[in-house]
Amino acid sequence: MKVVIIGGVAAGPKTGAKISRLAPDAQVTLVEKGEFLSYAGCGLPYYVAGEVKEQKELMCTPVGVVRDPVFFQNVKNMRVLNRTEALGIDRQQKTIRIRDLKSGQEQLLAYDKLVLATGAYPVRPPIPGMDFSNVFSVQKIEDAEAIREAVAQNKARDVVIVGGGLIGIEMTEALARHGARITVVERLPAILPMMDPELVAHVIRHLESKGVKVRCSTAVQSFEGSGSAQIVKTDQGDIPCDMVIVAVGVRPNVFLAKDAGLEIGKTGGIKVSAHMQTSDPDIYAAGDCVQAVELVSGEPCYVPLGSTANKQGRVAAVNVCGGDDVFPGVLGTAVIKVFDYTVARTGLSEEQARKAGFEVVTALSSAPDKAHYYPAAKTIMLKVIADRKSRRLLGLQVVGPGEGDKRVDVAATAITARMTVDDVAHLDLAYAPPYSPAMDNIITACDIVRNKIDGVFEGITPVEIKESLERGDNILFLDVRSPAEVAAMPFTLGPVVNIPLGGLRQRWAELPRNRQIVAFCKISLRGYEAAMILQGEGFTNVKVMDGGLVMWPF
Amino acid sequence: MKVVIIGGVAAGPKTGAKISRLAPDAQVTLVEKGEFLSYAGCGLPYYVAGEVKEQKELMCTPVGVVRDPVFFQNVKNMRVLNRTEALGIDRQQKTIRIRDLKSGQEQLLAYDKLVLATGAYPVRPPIPGMDFSNVFSVQKIEDAEAIREAVAQNKARDVVIVGGGLIGIEMTEALARHGARITVVERLPAILPMMDPELVAHVIRHLESKGVKVRCSTAVQSFEGSGSAQIVKTDQGDIPCDMVIVAVGVRPNVFLAKDAGLEIGKTGGIKVSAHMQTSDPDIYAAGDCVQAVELVSGEPCYVPLGSTANKQGRVAAVNVCGGDDVFPGVLGTAVIKVFDYTVARTGLSEEQARKAGFEVVTALSSAPDKAHYYPAAKTIMLKVIADRKSRRLLGLQVVGPGEGDKRVDVAATAITARMTVDDVAHLDLAYAPPYSPAMDNIITACDIVRNKIDGVFEGITPVEIKESLERGDNILFLDVRSPAEVAAMPFTLGPVVNIPLGGLRQRWAELPRNRQIVAFCKISLRGYEAAMILQGEGFTNVKVMDGGLVMWPF
Repeated sequence: MKVVIIGGVAAGPKTGAKISRLAPDAQVTLVEKGEFLSYAGCGLPYYVAGEVKEQKELMCTPVGVVRDPVFFQNVKNMRVLNRTEALGIDRQQKTIRIRDLKSGQEQLLAYDKLVLATGAYPVRPPIPGMDFSNVFSVQKIEDAEAIREAVAQNKARDVVIVGGGLIGIEMTEALARHGARITVVERLPAILPMMDPELVAHVIRHLESKGVKVRCSTAVQSFEGSGSAQIVKTDQGDIPCDMVIVAVGVRPNVFLAKDAGLEIGKTGGIKVSAHMQTSDPDIYAAGDCVQAVELVSGEPCYVPLGSTANKQGRVAAVNVCGGDDVFPGVLGTAVIKVFDYTVARTGLSEEQARKAGFEVVTALSSAPDKAHYYPAAKTIMLKVIADRKSRRLLGLQVVGPGEGDKRVDVAATAITARMTVDDVAHLDLAYAPPYSPAMDNIITACDIVRNKIDGVFEGITPVEIKESLERGDNILFLDVRSPAEVAAMPFTLGPVVNIPLGGLRQRWAELPRNRQIVAFCKISLRGYEAAMILQGEGFTNVKVMDGGLVMWPF
Repeated sequence: MKVVIIGGVAAGPKTGAKISRLAPDAQVTLVEKGEFLSYAGCGLPYYVAGEVKEQKELMCTPVGVVRDPVFFQNVKNMRVLNRTEALGIDRQQKTIRIRDLKSGQEQLLAYDKLVLATGAYPVRPPIPGMDFSNVFSVQKIEDAEAIREAVAQNKARDVVIVGGGLIGIEMTEALARHGARITVVERLPAILPMMDPELVAHVIRHLESKGVKVRCSTAVQSFEGSGSAQIVKTDQGDIPCDMVIVAVGVRPNVFLAKDAGLEIGKTGGIKVSAHMQTSDPDIYAAGDCVQAVELVSGEPCYVPLGSTANKQGRVAAVNVCGGDDVFPGVLGTAVIKVFDYTVARTGLSEEQARKAGFEVVTALSSAPDKAHYYPAAKTIMLKVIADRKSRRLLGLQVVGPGEGDKRVDVAATAITARMTVDDVAHLDLAYAPPYSPAMDNIITACDIVRNKIDGVFEGITPVEIKESLERGDNILFLDVRSPAEVAAMPFTLGPVVNIPLGGLRQRWAELPRNRQIVAFCKISLRGYEAAMILQGEGFTNVKVMDGGLVMWPF
């Protein structure tokens, strides 16, 4: 069996290696346009940051063997043609035309099975000045080397990052480690569009606390300067710079597939079955060039990630070799380290859930990620998205210095299994004071959702409060914090009465019965108790501020 | 509705508070024998260690309010009778006889619904010398205070910990922080019986690297000394000491329940339904006094934990108030910090899985918990337990400095959802270099199991290798590490041939075809590649050493 694989970064080498192991007689040839193979593209920001010291570390196995063509031949039994471009696929003849970029020579390569792992390419916006040598993108090792070189030459003091997605924000932290003054410019109303707005607000605050300027709803018009970009012109004014990083997203590289007449999905990625098979049964595809299925909504989606590429590569390999493995889909799970914060999400966002037709109920919850008395405990803020009718968990988002990735991984597992918030609330998660509160954060957050669904109390989200205040609704806020807490973090949003929780059972008569009351405290646990006390005394118009003051995003 | 709750530590206060919120008109009375309420018993070792500075922190809400009877009355609307003992239950009259321990006065308390949250008590083994004042147990705040006092007086230089369970090992670390020389004495062949032996071996090594002596299969005969215990006499010799901690387990406190004729389960805990109802429909029970169901086997089990107590308390409260909530059971999930290691587990152990009738297949896997080039990456060693026939994940155990608790929580969720190893291998877990390898550790480990089940390769566990060597089997080991690695960590178990993996495709003919070959490397990833190369060349008797040299436990 002759197998040709096009693409040598993540999905391609994974597929080839697995095929070689499953079918030792297969002749596997991997074609890669670039010099480097199987390198850790996701590691580039950490290489720029200097946390990863050597380029080599990104291209080695964990024991330090460089993954070059000799390695692939000797260890993986794959012939690797790097610096070789695939020009076209002849599906009738089952051949590929390739060109050796060193010699310029072209030849045909025959295949029985073909695997496309052509990856993605960074979007290059048509901004005047894109060609200045200090305007960088971040995809290849060569990009990272050039940025490092500029940093070494002290040419990264005032950096403008164009695009507030994952790579833009990772590069923000990487360059801030070198002392750069950084401005992130984002065309959309918020950075990190994978996250819901209330949570992004906290990420922006954290970035600003580190000296990073974040300018949303701002469109770049041009890069200006003589010899190099010195000014980023935007519709909101000029920003001086000595370096620009452009990271406005990636697109699936489907040129070959399209030329060959393979079906392309509506997200722009190659359409594949759960077996990773394209519309041609002898051609498979995996990694950043394919469209995936979002598991909750069943809708097509495009979420390029190294983790998915590896999993899909294995599935493709098993099926190429005559086995039967399926890749069910993704949840859009993502995580990013933003200075001291972990920012992560999985499943549907609130908006996605509404669009998918769910009757959405959400909860915000802020709590220490370990026993509150354990010194290493750090706050995490969670947002749970669930369906009122089926009670299914649909999504989870987390922001904060604590270990949010753990809760998101639990949620990803639970959502995949179509668990309800009740199921999640009863999970036997690992508890000891250095690892979680007795009630893990995700359990508490799901219990809040359960209380809402069961009508135990009514919550009001920050977004709803803001809208209500803008409408001029006659809300009375009930602050049940202690006087010391109030003095330390005064409340300024609107008319407020302060009755510490411990005194509420004596003093509830001071409150008006005919006015909407919004109870809160620092994290709204006492706010919830307060609402329950007032309901017990016959108040009928009491809501709890979701997430408390700590999570107030505006 | 009159509700009486007996027990004021974890499940009791949780149940009472939830009832008060759901049914504001209920008259809730909580009876607690001790002085202190709702304190964090699990936090005692960290208080002894000095990580938690003030006793008060263990008894406060996260915002620093002490949970005393006044707090419960004002905030939770519960009457609390502390220093009050429950003497007996009259189920016909629906009354409880209580005694005020301050005044000695007795009275009857009427109930409509009764909740038993009587907790557990530490086993007090009948060892001569148990009454010496420097022989401590660890259950109450008073115990921790007494131990701290002895430490402050420099009376904890040579400490013997009797019992190598969770509390014994937590206390080991706590006292080592004060500079104590510590010997752990365990009657069984290994400490931490929740863990499988191959993994415990690594924990013991780590303890020894911290200067802790671990003596297993050693029975304490007596504590000897004049005025205080100065010698721990064991069947393996004497151990000098100036402090002894006895932590040989806990038993459910079911005296009241038994006296009242309530059904007791075969594990010794109160038998309850999934609604947390005892054999008397007006009496509920929750927390460390009840028997739970192990979710994989469906067998009764007894796993006292603060996390479970809180969840059960909420379920009991909902049902007391006429709602309908069920507590499905537990997985024996546990986690413990042992100096720099996280040691955790969930689901069935290998032995439990065999006993439950599964056709067990296991995998050992060792890898960094983050991208291997990311500087903060640390090793974790995993053992996966699965069922060959159904392909279900049955259990996961982890040991090492990396973040094992995250993988165990994912596994606990997956096992609860009855996921197969295939399902787990395709999970969309959160990936970025600071959080996990591109293929998360649990995914890699499940892929190894899948390869074994699918017959892609055959593994041999350290236990099997040891048995085979002891039988005198003619094994040839194939070490495919580099010469530098071999020099750094020589292999001494048996006859070995060293062929670095990169040379194996040229040199396989040097190996005998008629002898069992066990291939390995540091973590057995290259060992696996080697086995695949040899199988490809027609070798039929090649196995891979599970987990590689790093996980060799003996």
